[in-house]
Amino acid sequence: MKTVHSPHHVLQNAEAEFIRGRKVPSFEMPRRAELVLERVNAVSLGPVIEPKSFGTDPILKVHDRDFVTFLATAWETWSTENGPIDAFPNAWPPPRSSRVRTNRPGAELGRYCIDLSSPIMAGTWTAATAGADTALTAMEIAAGADKCAFALCRPPGHHAGRDYFGGYCFLNNAAIAAQAWLDRGLDKVAVLDVDYHHGNGTQDIFHDRADVLTVSIHADPQHEYPYYSGYADETGEGEGAGFNLNIPLAWGSDYATYAPALAEALARIAGFGAEALVVSLGVDTFGGDPISRFRLVNADFTTMGRTIASLGIPTLFVMEGGYAVEDIGVNAVNVLTGFEAAR
Amino acid sequence: MKTVHSPHHVLQNAEAEFIRGRKVPSFEMPRRAELVLERVNAVSLGPVIEPKSFGTDPILKVHDRDFVTFLATAWETWSTENGPIDAFPNAWPPPRSSRVRTNRPGAELGRYCIDLSSPIMAGTWTAATAGADTALTAMEIAAGADKCAFALCRPPGHHAGRDYFGGYCFLNNAAIAAQAWLDRGLDKVAVLDVDYHHGNGTQDIFHDRADVLTVSIHADPQHEYPYYSGYADETGEGEGAGFNLNIPLAWGSDYATYAPALAEALARIAGFGAEALVVSLGVDTFGGDPISRFRLVNADFTTMGRTIASLGIPTLFVMEGGYAVEDIGVNAVNVLTGFEAAR
Repeated sequence: MKTVHSPHHVLQNAEAEFIRGRKVPSFEMPRRAELVLERVNAVSLGPVIEPKSFGTDPILKVHDRDFVTFLATAWETWSTENGPIDAFPNAWPPPRSSRVRTNRPGAELGRYCIDLSSPIMAGTWTAATAGADTALTAMEIAAGADKCAFALCRPPGHHAGRDYFGGYCFLNNAAIAAQAWLDRGLDKVAVLDVDYHHGNGTQDIFHDRADVLTVSIHADPQHEYPYYSGYADETGEGEGAGFNLNIPLAWGSDYATYAPALAEALARIAGFGAEALVVSLGVDTFGGDPISRFRLVNADFTTMGRTIASLGIPTLFVMEGGYAVEDIGVNAVNVLTGFEAAR
Repeated sequence: MKTVHSPHHVLQNAEAEFIRGRKVPSFEMPRRAELVLERVNAVSLGPVIEPKSFGTDPILKVHDRDFVTFLATAWETWSTENGPIDAFPNAWPPPRSSRVRTNRPGAELGRYCIDLSSPIMAGTWTAATAGADTALTAMEIAAGADKCAFALCRPPGHHAGRDYFGGYCFLNNAAIAAQAWLDRGLDKVAVLDVDYHHGNGTQDIFHDRADVLTVSIHADPQHEYPYYSGYADETGEGEGAGFNLNIPLAWGSDYATYAPALAEALARIAGFGAEALVVSLGVDTFGGDPISRFRLVNADFTTMGRTIASLGIPTLFVMEGGYAVEDIGVNAVNVLTGFEAAR
């Protein structure tokens, strides 16, 4: 399997995030991608190539223009007012707010940002667009003779919605790739999100559409980020009614619990008639993850990859979360080698 | 003029707030109220009395029950999970979120909180309800033979909306008093907010009602907190259409600019036929205020009070913001003595 990866990911390198009023070192860091890349090479998964540049057109197909414009210009605007310090919001719109734009970068930041884990810095836009390009380049490979590819994206993307960023995510790499795949002529694409955290951004982007089925298996949002979505009763709206499936699982779930959820997800995707699959590949379901509470072991990820291969459709893997840095490479690549062995 | 004040205000005593990703000492502090009280006594404004207790019924007339329940229980829930550290949110609901309740105190905090300036601590509920009781007790005095009173509330209230808190505010003392005044049999009450910052919470609470006219003179929210409301085109909705007046002024405004705005506000209140007036009395319009950019001088506050007296209706002053601690007492009490001298 070919891997697409951009060195620009290192430009997103947050010193810290805020949790419960305390500044702590960021769990999301460049080393995560490096470890995955090292493992890709260690097991000789296949060639590692750099992404092509696709510009903003494919991004604007899933994100609102004002949001994209904000992201592209946020650092310049912010640093002009505040100097070279990482950009965090300190206020955000209450219910029933005006949509009038403010002249204050911090206030506009609060309009688009959903948490205190995702600072904008000088290289955020470059890193985020490199991530989107990585997903798009890998999608083209998966859409071709290879029929599969690995987009080693960083920063991750699945928490970024139509008009918001957060959860370490700025642009929704998986959603951008799924949309671009449709735009190549497919009628139906599915996104399967196996990250520990609900893929709220992906759900949001395709919430009212019937041509993209979104399925997410994740920790119950009553207990875990992103808290405010990911419940089983969210099944899509309008034309998208019935085209979103959330499978929240309890803290402590191991693969005995996970396997039936994955089977349900894959059955739904098969029933949908998906012509291609985008997997939002988070491996923070691992038992050793520092911020998660599932109990998957290394070998379970191989099984997961093998199981996903049973769909028998072109598949793009897009890297999302996973924070047990020592194991992230093993677990992510286990999914890929499991997939390759079974297809 | 009688002053109502509760010693419980000291229970809200934040060590810090977060501005642009940096932890800074809180600008809102108990010393603010102490300085006003000292000045009240220094000029012999009148008796200082402690508030009666009114319970939660009058609070529930302007705030949503789930929000009030949250505020009343937030510290116990939070501290059980997180220990005795001040409660700040680190995530909040994106657009189009679920309304399902989570089991995580930090996430529920994010649902109701609009910024990083207003930590909940052990004494927040006691201090906030003491503030509401202070406003209610003073309203009863102003509704009686005295025809005026000063509610020396702290924490302030005007940024607290139907279902949210922030901007150092938890319960909207002015709105609670205005509603209670109506409930004593009045048909029309006006709220005049002269704080430097838009009274977004008060506007929100009465946005769809014709029996409370809300008027706010404040710094243009394109530049200043609360950013997402306070624009001139917000005039109320539904039955409240036409019953909200925002007068945003530019940075650098002095009393030459302020006086016509105040005259416009008072003319609107007179035309409304208000039977009683609640003044949200912030004095952060002072030129020396550390977080504001108007240029009023000490004597302007006397003029302001004298001008407000021209309405000739029962008037309740409710303390809001003002952070130039050395002058806050002089400026707040200048409004009151100006009012008394002219009525």
